[in-house]
Amino acid sequence: MTEFEIVHKDLMGRIGKLRTAHGNVETPTIMPVINPNLMSIGADEMKKYGAEMLIANAYIIYRKANLREEAVKKGIHSLLGCEMPIMTDSGSYQLYEYKDVEVSNKEILEFQQRIGSDVSVPLDIPTAPNVKKERAKDDLEETLSRMREARSIIQNNMLAGVVQGSTFLDLREESAKRVAEIGFDVYAIGGVVPLLESYKFDKLVDIIVASKTNLPLNAPVHLFGAGHPMLFPLAVALGCDLFDSAAYALYAKGKRYITSDGTRKVDALRYLPCSCPVCSSYSVNEVKESEDLLASHNLWATFEEMRVVKQSIAEGSLWELCERRCRAYPALLNALKQITKYSALIEKYDPATKHPFFYLSECSAHRPEVLRYAYKMNRFKLSGNVLITATAATERLKEKEVESGNYDHVFFVKPPFGPYPAELSESYPVGQSEIPAEVDNEAKTVALQNVLKLLEMNKGRANFAFLYDSSWEGHPLIEEIGKYAEVRKK
Amino acid sequence: MTEFEIVHKDLMGRIGKLRTAHGNVETPTIMPVINPNLMSIGADEMKKYGAEMLIANAYIIYRKANLREEAVKKGIHSLLGCEMPIMTDSGSYQLYEYKDVEVSNKEILEFQQRIGSDVSVPLDIPTAPNVKKERAKDDLEETLSRMREARSIIQNNMLAGVVQGSTFLDLREESAKRVAEIGFDVYAIGGVVPLLESYKFDKLVDIIVASKTNLPLNAPVHLFGAGHPMLFPLAVALGCDLFDSAAYALYAKGKRYITSDGTRKVDALRYLPCSCPVCSSYSVNEVKESEDLLASHNLWATFEEMRVVKQSIAEGSLWELCERRCRAYPALLNALKQITKYSALIEKYDPATKHPFFYLSECSAHRPEVLRYAYKMNRFKLSGNVLITATAATERLKEKEVESGNYDHVFFVKPPFGPYPAELSESYPVGQSEIPAEVDNEAKTVALQNVLKLLEMNKGRANFAFLYDSSWEGHPLIEEIGKYAEVRKK
Repeated sequence: MTEFEIVHKDLMGRIGKLRTAHGNVETPTIMPVINPNLMSIGADEMKKYGAEMLIANAYIIYRKANLREEAVKKGIHSLLGCEMPIMTDSGSYQLYEYKDVEVSNKEILEFQQRIGSDVSVPLDIPTAPNVKKERAKDDLEETLSRMREARSIIQNNMLAGVVQGSTFLDLREESAKRVAEIGFDVYAIGGVVPLLESYKFDKLVDIIVASKTNLPLNAPVHLFGAGHPMLFPLAVALGCDLFDSAAYALYAKGKRYITSDGTRKVDALRYLPCSCPVCSSYSVNEVKESEDLLASHNLWATFEEMRVVKQSIAEGSLWELCERRCRAYPALLNALKQITKYSALIEKYDPATKHPFFYLSECSAHRPEVLRYAYKMNRFKLSGNVLITATAATERLKEKEVESGNYDHVFFVKPPFGPYPAELSESYPVGQSEIPAEVDNEAKTVALQNVLKLLEMNKGRANFAFLYDSSWEGHPLIEEIGKYAEVRKK
Repeated sequence: MTEFEIVHKDLMGRIGKLRTAHGNVETPTIMPVINPNLMSIGADEMKKYGAEMLIANAYIIYRKANLREEAVKKGIHSLLGCEMPIMTDSGSYQLYEYKDVEVSNKEILEFQQRIGSDVSVPLDIPTAPNVKKERAKDDLEETLSRMREARSIIQNNMLAGVVQGSTFLDLREESAKRVAEIGFDVYAIGGVVPLLESYKFDKLVDIIVASKTNLPLNAPVHLFGAGHPMLFPLAVALGCDLFDSAAYALYAKGKRYITSDGTRKVDALRYLPCSCPVCSSYSVNEVKESEDLLASHNLWATFEEMRVVKQSIAEGSLWELCERRCRAYPALLNALKQITKYSALIEKYDPATKHPFFYLSECSAHRPEVLRYAYKMNRFKLSGNVLITATAATERLKEKEVESGNYDHVFFVKPPFGPYPAELSESYPVGQSEIPAEVDNEAKTVALQNVLKLLEMNKGRANFAFLYDSSWEGHPLIEEIGKYAEVRKK
């Protein structure tokens, strides 16, 4: 039933192709929100920005008699004047904002079907963060019952199943599992907008991971309400494929200028830090004075970042992109650190070789590639005399020591990976990693932990000598290594 | 004599206004190199990219009889078809590349004067990095003698004095001092191209600092040959004002696509990670197939980054920009770490208050603002009973402890700054700093060093109690603090 094909992968992110009744969509992508009541940028104009799919709120159309009639008569595509694929939302955001909506799940789904939505969404219950758990559970049961009802109503069109569960990760997991059991064409993670508004990006990471890892891999995942480009690298890295943006217009209304590095008040700009068609043609004052120009810039900046993300996936440098982008705010850095806690999980999805590994901060010490290297160390079954040398000028030393017959094996040490034999000195990742001149303590710790791992694995079979230079001095793990190896300082 | 006015400052960077015979130029700016033999982008077209000043090689014009005659007859501005200010170079790059040029210092300077160059450059001797010191010294003496000659030849037009000295920092310092003594309108740092080509950006930092700190502040400094935008944030942060770019065209010739995060082979692009007028109008394949389109994109990307840098200076967030940009390559991270070693120096130039302080990596622990805070701690002259509390929920505690009369003063601790009294809890920088949820060890170390400083300064006058929570546990400085204060774990 699924119409989703994965073309490239990096971390848990992927470039995919989603087949819809109105043509193929390449993911990850952002669906601009089109409101037929106020269209500063028309639906058809969206193509030039890079849009491949749009999203409209079926509830807003449903509520206005004239729009509703027109939509039913002509279909949503004619109503909006565009033949691109269109996803429709159900009004559940209005349900969250205003506590009530004037439509049932069944009604809004049948309406979405009648107007020819390419992907319909049931009227799920968005539960706020940090509510009482009972409340979150009750909301979730109601959402799941609406999902089942939706599945029985929508047969021919594509349908999205929504994951809720507030900030309870066990509920998110359960929600994802049960919605996956029902079976949908697209999955959506809902209820995260308040977390985005309060910059709780580390919590967002937890929720995406808890949801995503319990959803099928062969379907796209939509992160509802995450329209700011500063979120794309990390959300895509965790496996989100679809995004919607009302932000481009809402931020413009609020006189805010979007960049991949965050948001600026347009009135605080003295220069336009961008070269999009708006910013390369208009002055900073013209952009300040026109909500339409600002919305247009915001949309260019949004799609530009999505292309940056896609290029990073294609070349295998998505982690490096996250390292840069997550330095826009300390709250984003919290999220990056949170991602490192899921490295063991991400490692299972991440392709084996890619772009050269750049060590860019202590977060890099906990990348999935580093963990994978540690997993693979159990292939090093050693006996005889082994030298592990954590010094510079290792090549020369190796030749000397091996030729003189002192050692049966020689390993070098490179932070953050740890010990590696000469044969791997050209291979990914160790041999294709660039590390700064002075590595931080985290990289050294991980490297020495892996030395210890090698020693423990081969304890009793091989005799180890560990040679290190002054750059490692004072590291507490050196003493620990002394329990298994003869330790010498060079 | 100087015609340079500084408008905004951040770190050692500044936004300035340079008055030339052909109008004002706002710095920092990039001067695109215009070669009259091959103009893929015409001089007058440069304005639309954001160019305010151009640079042309007087030696290339001088060598071609027809060009030379035309230049002498019409002047350089008419030759290039543009009324923007034009700086001219002297052929010293050709001297470096081909070891010899067919012109003397005097000849090329007189030529530059005759063709009406806005800023002339003497024929200095670019010395390669890491040559023997004697060689660097000899070259430098010759360069200085040419500078003196230049100063006697050029009287009415503006003239650049060039700093050389290879990779010897003492020679760079001496070179800068002596060239400043002669007195020029613009100063240029030369001989760095080989360092750029080999990504020795940390060495570049050393050379800029050694030169810049010995040059007058009221004149612009030109970093010769640094046309790649990934270098702008750090070079501007260290006080460079002018850049030249042949890179936009040379990289296009070499099928390389410039971004603020480095360089990509255009053939490796599947997407255009940019929304400049080229990348928003053409497909990735069209850009791959046209050197002109690629040169145009490269130039847009170059000027975009300069606007990003200028906006960062205006809002006081240039450090934060460096934190992000220096994560494009480990070699740039080396440069950022190198910059932290000059924090005490940079602190003297850096404005006192600015954009909220974002803690973004261990490099942030060594920002000039942190150092300045430590300097200013000597205003805390304390007596009586003092509580220093490195715990959360400090405000409530404070009220309790002070009201119960146990303490005369209460200080809180915030990494990386260290101790601060409640009165400063809203003030820049401590009160206007955002730190990640889990701070790194470097931030804790600097904070505890400042606690120690407070204790040592007030030793014998005040009785200290130091209260800390589990997040600080195991830090070696806690024991040290115990020598001066009663230490309690909460």
